[in-house]
Amino acid sequence: MEEWEKRDRRLLLKYRAGRLELRELVQHLRELPYQNLSFAKVDLHRAMRRNFPEVIYAKGKTSEQIVAIAQVLHRNGSPVLITKLTPGMAKAVRRRLPWLRYFPEARIGAGPAHKPRSRGLALVVTAGTGDIPMAEEAVVTLQFLGTPVRRLFDVGVAGLHRLLSHQKILRKARVIVVAAGMDGALPSVISGLVSCPVIAVPTSVGYGASFKGVAPLLTMLNSCSPGVAVVNIDNGFGAGYLAAMIAR
Amino acid sequence: MEEWEKRDRRLLLKYRAGRLELRELVQHLRELPYQNLSFAKVDLHRAMRRNFPEVIYAKGKTSEQIVAIAQVLHRNGSPVLITKLTPGMAKAVRRRLPWLRYFPEARIGAGPAHKPRSRGLALVVTAGTGDIPMAEEAVVTLQFLGTPVRRLFDVGVAGLHRLLSHQKILRKARVIVVAAGMDGALPSVISGLVSCPVIAVPTSVGYGASFKGVAPLLTMLNSCSPGVAVVNIDNGFGAGYLAAMIAR
Amino acid sequence: MEEWEKRDRRLLLKYRAGRLELRELVQHLRELPYQNLSFAKVDLHRAMRRNFPEVIYAKGKTSEQIVAIAQVLHRNGSPVLITKLTPGMAKAVRRRLPWLRYFPEARIGAGPAHKPRSRGLALVVTAGTGDIPMAEEAVVTLQFLGTPVRRLFDVGVAGLHRLLSHQKILRKARVIVVAAGMDGALPSVISGLVSCPVIAVPTSVGYGASFKGVAPLLTMLNSCSPGVAVVNIDNGFGAGYLAAMIAR
Amino acid sequence: MEEWEKRDRRLLLKYRAGRLELRELVQHLRELPYQNLSFAKVDLHRAMRRNFPEVIYAKGKTSEQIVAIAQVLHRNGSPVLITKLTPGMAKAVRRRLPWLRYFPEARIGAGPAHKPRSRGLALVVTAGTGDIPMAEEAVVTLQFLGTPVRRLFDVGVAGLHRLLSHQKILRKARVIVVAAGMDGALPSVISGLVSCPVIAVPTSVGYGASFKGVAPLLTMLNSCSPGVAVVNIDNGFGAGYLAAMIAR
Amino acid sequence: MEEWEKRDRRLLLKYRAGRLELRELVQHLRELPYQNLSFAKVDLHRAMRRNFPEVIYAKGKTSEQIVAIAQVLHRNGSPVLITKLTPGMAKAVRRRLPWLRYFPEARIGAGPAHKPRSRGLALVVTAGTGDIPMAEEAVVTLQFLGTPVRRLFDVGVAGLHRLLSHQKILRKARVIVVAAGMDGALPSVISGLVSCPVIAVPTSVGYGASFKGVAPLLTMLNSCSPGVAVVNIDNGFGAGYLAAMIAR
Amino acid sequence: MEEWEKRDRRLLLKYRAGRLELRELVQHLRELPYQNLSFAKVDLHRAMRRNFPEVIYAKGKTSEQIVAIAQVLHRNGSPVLITKLTPGMAKAVRRRLPWLRYFPEARIGAGPAHKPRSRGLALVVTAGTGDIPMAEEAVVTLQFLGTPVRRLFDVGVAGLHRLLSHQKILRKARVIVVAAGMDGALPSVISGLVSCPVIAVPTSVGYGASFKGVAPLLTMLNSCSPGVAVVNIDNGFGAGYLAAMIAR
Amino acid sequence: MEEWEKRDRRLLLKYRAGRLELRELVQHLRELPYQNLSFAKVDLHRAMRRNFPEVIYAKGKTSEQIVAIAQVLHRNGSPVLITKLTPGMAKAVRRRLPWLRYFPEARIGAGPAHKPRSRGLALVVTAGTGDIPMAEEAVVTLQFLGTPVRRLFDVGVAGLHRLLSHQKILRKARVIVVAAGMDGALPSVISGLVSCPVIAVPTSVGYGASFKGVAPLLTMLNSCSPGVAVVNIDNGFGAGYLAAMIAR
Amino acid sequence: MEEWEKRDRRLLLKYRAGRLELRELVQHLRELPYQNLSFAKVDLHRAMRRNFPEVIYAKGKTSEQIVAIAQVLHRNGSPVLITKLTPGMAKAVRRRLPWLRYFPEARIGAGPAHKPRSRGLALVVTAGTGDIPMAEEAVVTLQFLGTPVRRLFDVGVAGLHRLLSHQKILRKARVIVVAAGMDGALPSVISGLVSCPVIAVPTSVGYGASFKGVAPLLTMLNSCSPGVAVVNIDNGFGAGYLAAMIAR
Repeated sequence: MEEWEKRDRRLLLKYRAGRLELRELVQHLRELPYQNLSFAKVDLHRAMRRNFPEVIYAKGKTSEQIVAIAQVLHRNGSPVLITKLTPGMAKAVRRRLPWLRYFPEARIGAGPAHKPRSRGLALVVTAGTGDIPMAEEAVVTLQFLGTPVRRLFDVGVAGLHRLLSHQKILRKARVIVVAAGMDGALPSVISGLVSCPVIAVPTSVGYGASFKGVAPLLTMLNSCSPGVAVVNIDNGFGAGYLAAMIAR
Repeated sequence: MEEWEKRDRRLLLKYRAGRLELRELVQHLRELPYQNLSFAKVDLHRAMRRNFPEVIYAKGKTSEQIVAIAQVLHRNGSPVLITKLTPGMAKAVRRRLPWLRYFPEARIGAGPAHKPRSRGLALVVTAGTGDIPMAEEAVVTLQFLGTPVRRLFDVGVAGLHRLLSHQKILRKARVIVVAAGMDGALPSVISGLVSCPVIAVPTSVGYGASFKGVAPLLTMLNSCSPGVAVVNIDNGFGAGYLAAMIAR
Repeated sequence: MEEWEKRDRRLLLKYRAGRLELRELVQHLRELPYQNLSFAKVDLHRAMRRNFPEVIYAKGKTSEQIVAIAQVLHRNGSPVLITKLTPGMAKAVRRRLPWLRYFPEARIGAGPAHKPRSRGLALVVTAGTGDIPMAEEAVVTLQFLGTPVRRLFDVGVAGLHRLLSHQKILRKARVIVVAAGMDGALPSVISGLVSCPVIAVPTSVGYGASFKGVAPLLTMLNSCSPGVAVVNIDNGFGAGYLAAMIAR
Repeated sequence: MEEWEKRDRRLLLKYRAGRLELRELVQHLRELPYQNLSFAKVDLHRAMRRNFPEVIYAKGKTSEQIVAIAQVLHRNGSPVLITKLTPGMAKAVRRRLPWLRYFPEARIGAGPAHKPRSRGLALVVTAGTGDIPMAEEAVVTLQFLGTPVRRLFDVGVAGLHRLLSHQKILRKARVIVVAAGMDGALPSVISGLVSCPVIAVPTSVGYGASFKGVAPLLTMLNSCSPGVAVVNIDNGFGAGYLAAMIAR
Repeated sequence: MEEWEKRDRRLLLKYRAGRLELRELVQHLRELPYQNLSFAKVDLHRAMRRNFPEVIYAKGKTSEQIVAIAQVLHRNGSPVLITKLTPGMAKAVRRRLPWLRYFPEARIGAGPAHKPRSRGLALVVTAGTGDIPMAEEAVVTLQFLGTPVRRLFDVGVAGLHRLLSHQKILRKARVIVVAAGMDGALPSVISGLVSCPVIAVPTSVGYGASFKGVAPLLTMLNSCSPGVAVVNIDNGFGAGYLAAMIAR
Repeated sequence: MEEWEKRDRRLLLKYRAGRLELRELVQHLRELPYQNLSFAKVDLHRAMRRNFPEVIYAKGKTSEQIVAIAQVLHRNGSPVLITKLTPGMAKAVRRRLPWLRYFPEARIGAGPAHKPRSRGLALVVTAGTGDIPMAEEAVVTLQFLGTPVRRLFDVGVAGLHRLLSHQKILRKARVIVVAAGMDGALPSVISGLVSCPVIAVPTSVGYGASFKGVAPLLTMLNSCSPGVAVVNIDNGFGAGYLAAMIAR
Repeated sequence: MEEWEKRDRRLLLKYRAGRLELRELVQHLRELPYQNLSFAKVDLHRAMRRNFPEVIYAKGKTSEQIVAIAQVLHRNGSPVLITKLTPGMAKAVRRRLPWLRYFPEARIGAGPAHKPRSRGLALVVTAGTGDIPMAEEAVVTLQFLGTPVRRLFDVGVAGLHRLLSHQKILRKARVIVVAAGMDGALPSVISGLVSCPVIAVPTSVGYGASFKGVAPLLTMLNSCSPGVAVVNIDNGFGAGYLAAMIAR
Repeated sequence: MEEWEKRDRRLLLKYRAGRLELRELVQHLRELPYQNLSFAKVDLHRAMRRNFPEVIYAKGKTSEQIVAIAQVLHRNGSPVLITKLTPGMAKAVRRRLPWLRYFPEARIGAGPAHKPRSRGLALVVTAGTGDIPMAEEAVVTLQFLGTPVRRLFDVGVAGLHRLLSHQKILRKARVIVVAAGMDGALPSVISGLVSCPVIAVPTSVGYGASFKGVAPLLTMLNSCSPGVAVVNIDNGFGAGYLAAMIAR
């Protein structure tokens, strides 16, 4: 039975015992574990419900809004993770949140990391050097969520031997995140070599008919090797989050 | 019978009585209630015809053109609403139109608001914080057109309880405008909870496979819950305008 | 206060009075007004919640599934509406549901219609003869939901005078549904002439670059005349449903 | 018989008469009327072949390249028209080509205009104020090619009476160019009112689901009124060129 | 002055002379020259207004509807043209309309052709053999509208000499219709050789990345040779109609 | 150390001991564990390498080819799973493979199932009744791969209470597969309620702007709730395969 | 110097010598080596000009048209190749052309093959069994054009070892054609292993987000390994033709 | 037999002779010819494997990363080619790599060129002046890879005679690269005139419905003249690389 279910039953018993008014009971049952800022309803319940805290997506928010939400989370003892945080924004936000650590390559701001809770190893792979920022977003997310991580960068299919010489580490992983742009062929190839789930991150690296990541997205959705699932273009955070869930 | 129909009949009777020449009669019948600027034909007839005044879409117009059109409307006693007005433009325009009020979040410039004419309540909802500008565009439009409005922001489906705790206000509304980007799932969910029309505004918030609003647009068009209609991406004004028509 | 809220309060009072066990109370609060068929969960609650009954979308269902769902609704006193029902399917279904009436042009099967509940008039318009099936889907839906309807067919913009000679009926409507394929220009033109909401239904009529309705869909989303909202391609039912909500 | 055919026959007669060597003859037959700059082959033959001179498309060319091509044309007595010429470029180019006149709204630089050669009137129409630049591109092109032109701006379908009050001028035209963005509905409506060809120019004015002009492009290709042909998005020049061909 | 304007003035004079009641006058002014079938409003006014009669687009109409519309036109002395008429439909329709002639390759049914009214020659060209049906649609339409036509088939750019050997007929034409699928390159090449307008018809001939005509449609819209305008995919009728307008 | 690595070392030792020729050694190292049919190279190595056997994708193969591949797998002791197998094909194949069991709703043919190897529960959910075939494909795949499965069908967001009343089973799952068409909103909503990975299967159920599954695909890629990954449209098998990997 | 150039010089010398009239000379220079059927202009010149004969694309042609063109080619001593020829068509055509050989898998009809003219080896590879028809189209075309060919089928990236064990034959080829659907990853992988050109053929094998071959087409265009060029979806013939040109 | 195969056999013999430990042997067999930088794995093996060195794609890399990779290649005696190198980047990179030569129009940085190794001539053609940068990318790549190159610029199909007067050089080439934007028609036309492979480069030159190179890409994929293959939009490097492979 969950924490809030217990609370509800306690309230019902209290009400029956006459120690709570009907009006108050209804009020309590309606009380929900989020905090209402005018522009945001911060979901404090999420860590309980999902085992992972709410994450702040920085794009489209002002630095004031980011700071306010982060403070609510922080004050309530929830860890803080801010994604797609540009260096300029990071500077402004950290002036107000000195406890925040900024990872420039991953464009993530994070509060104190979780204690490792996972025993499964996550491996984060890229096809090229240009895919590293999205891969780092996954790496930082995984670390924040307490998952041991290893990196394997620049092993795209144009030089297969670079990949084949790392089969040992590939086989060790409980879950693999693969970031690739252009032809997006790497997840298919890796999935064919391993027995664990592969989370594919199409990246907007490339030009022309890559259509800002559409080409690798389609490649990955059509992987001829089962065991591959796909997240949004450039969504290293989402891949890391999901990988942490799997590795747990 | 409409005003101009009465005018036409008056003219015909006058003409029969010999107090109007055939040439003059034809001329009068051709006279149409718009004012011809070289670059624009301002539709003074619209308030009569549609119960709502003509609205100025600022994008692609010079500030000189905006000012000229606004002055024609203002001089003819018509209310003035200017949409998609950037802060820079607003500054230039207000130097010439001191009576204009600027709403920076909604990017709207407006003359004196209508008196409330509607009794039905309009509710404007957003899925996230990033959708607020489009929502505010709808709010300001609704207020300008005399409709009572309430806001409910940041109640996206990632934390359903934030939405479910507001079912009372949802059920009170005569019409609901919902602005959402990314997965665009909120209008479907809300529509399933209420008995009033839902106007969905897909927003360009998001990245990658959201394709600048195409993803939520398609989601909303395919709503599995009937009672949802869709306007253009980021078109908060259009949603507000339509909601005002419905609430009336 | 709604019916089910009252029921809940009654239960809570009963429980306090000791006439209901805690376990039973929790059970009752969990009891939801739907009936669980293995392949479907029929939403009996919907008529209460939305003022409109649940509607059966026939496509992708077997005739056995349709009959089973319809019977559950019928037995519970809910009206029955089945959309996208092909003539072949209709024949099979009616053998089991003799009370069902079939509208072949609208491809709708319906149980006894609602009593008129709405005073606002809905007008259903088409640009061409080929758009009539989608328009009829809207007409039958509106009638089923108790809304007075009028038809105005084949008044596309290629011959404007056909439309302009019907301005009287256009101005009388509380809401107008416009079905148009090909260029999809008609809703913009009509919206410019009236003061009520226009629900636009893009149709898949046409060929080549109409892309099975994408062309009129985009036209309608970009209407230069505010007051237009759009539903899915060929979704006459959705337009009729929304129009009934507005007309009420 | 054309000029160059005559030249060829003269050469062949001369050769037969022994006044020309076989080698020379072959050489002459190969000589083509263009001038070879390293980066461009200026087509001096075009005015002869097409009745219209070669036109310089400025985009993607350096100002040096533009000047060099324009000088070759000018020196050979050919008129000069430079399209998509930005104000910055225009300034740089005119320093070297003082005889060039610049039309900032149309973004065209032009040498001395042709003498009027056409008796048919061309009418250039826009739906909104934002479409004027593309319309002006057509107007300047038509004037340069010697065609009488009239303008009719801001008569979009949101206020039909603005258009209907100009039916006289619409009926006078030998060819009509219509520039429209957003819903792109105007060419269909105009074509239904007249008996001359309508050249439709979709413009990139608009936002969201107008997809930078794709929406009006599709609308126009699907015009339910025959007699409409379409040119590329924002291609006012192409529309003007074609209209001049038709009006001639 | 047009016929109906004269009629209106006659009515006004009659009314002034007291020989017409006000109510009757208004009624007459409202009377519009179309005939109202329940499913169609036949535009008898069109021949007057556009110099071309209304055309029946067969797709999406029942044979009963086609027959009824054709009879109204025929009875009113208007010529009849039915496009996209399949052989099966044609058979059914001709049983009721024995005076109708069917052109199976063009999929057109036509009543008695117009007398030649145009002196300008129209040339209809195809890139391949597969484009002939669309070309024939244009040919029959042009003939029906009284325009002299010549055919030039299978002269695609894969064997340029086939085209270059027909430059004489190319230069004679007042307007050229070019139907091409696949790469759609032919209109650009032809337009570069002639001084008359080229109407390009993209065809759905081809496979794979031709996307049912999208590839040649885009090629033609981007023609590097000005003087080309485009109609809908496979719209041979539209091209023929426009060409007839130009040739007149 | 893996089986084949041990074999290689054994061979190397044997070779050193002089009991194997260099030529033979090289030959052995080249010998790969697949069987070469002319039209297919059956990957017997896969079960070893991936813990899951090779799967036969029936579409585009003749029944002869399917039988031949299945026999090679079966003879080598590998389990057999054939996806996208139509009823007609299934009949033909089972005549030759009497040990094959056919699941008509899932369109899967399977040999003897794996013994349960997984303790984690997989839950397979659908939004509507039309999504059941893809869900069944996932269910059968999961069962074949030895994973305990539960079904929860027809709990789409149009009637949220149907979903909310099943939160217990949702929270019990180690992994959830969600099949949804139309708006595709269900995976976002479910993911917000649970702490396990959600594999989303967009389905081609729906019409018009669902574009055969593109709309729900985009919705799911843009899920505002992290923890969702997506597979190809209608790819129930891929989702089941991945879920089995996660549940293990 | 080419054959026809020699012919032209001979004619010019003959003319100078007075043995040819000017009119006749011009006539001869215009005479072009194609034969004019009403619906086709058969390019007899092509074998000379391109070293390869004209090829007949069967789709969209009647069997009468195919027979007529093939007969013209055959009578003029040109080899005959007919692509995309369905079995039904093949039967009809072979009744009239008994010398034609039909390859059902490749859907090609061919006259007597060229004598081997090429020394370079072409290798034709497929990712799966479903890609074999397009591969066979390339094989038959290569053989017809006199190029030695080898096949390597079903070596997709899901089981890399199947490919890696064939590196010898991969390295022997002068050119490689790779047909692949779904993720289309194979050409990138192969290109990284070899030093010869790779011609990639995307196939329409697959479902859902493969969009009938668009996914592998994009993958191949974005190959991260240089040395890959792409032809149209399912265009095995085009790939074989190009490979023959390269191998020569 | 290849270099590394010889090395492997030498090692095996050495091991048999007892001069190498088993552990060491395995280690050596695992040693792969690439150098591991943390962010990149430089493929030194590629020149051996593919006859062409690894190429550095500058986009998305920092100048530090580019310099580090270039130095590894340079130190190992491999030639260096850096593509898509902006002038700003080039300046930064050359400060550290003084031996690098920069080609600003081609946006390529290159180390000492290969000695000519190829006898076949490559011809690089453009349709317009705006296509020159992509063509120059191909030219520099070809020269770097030791292939003799000729240029033929600005011979688009709008003025065919410019192209036809260069048939001699067209026929001389062993391979032709054609860069074209807008309608992309040139490769089809050229391919029809020659007997060598044509590599088509669609360019992003153009506007509106050219969709940044999609229009010419589709045109080229659908070339009605066989013998054309396509590379990515603006990928002059890939075309040059492939052409060098063919010309060899």
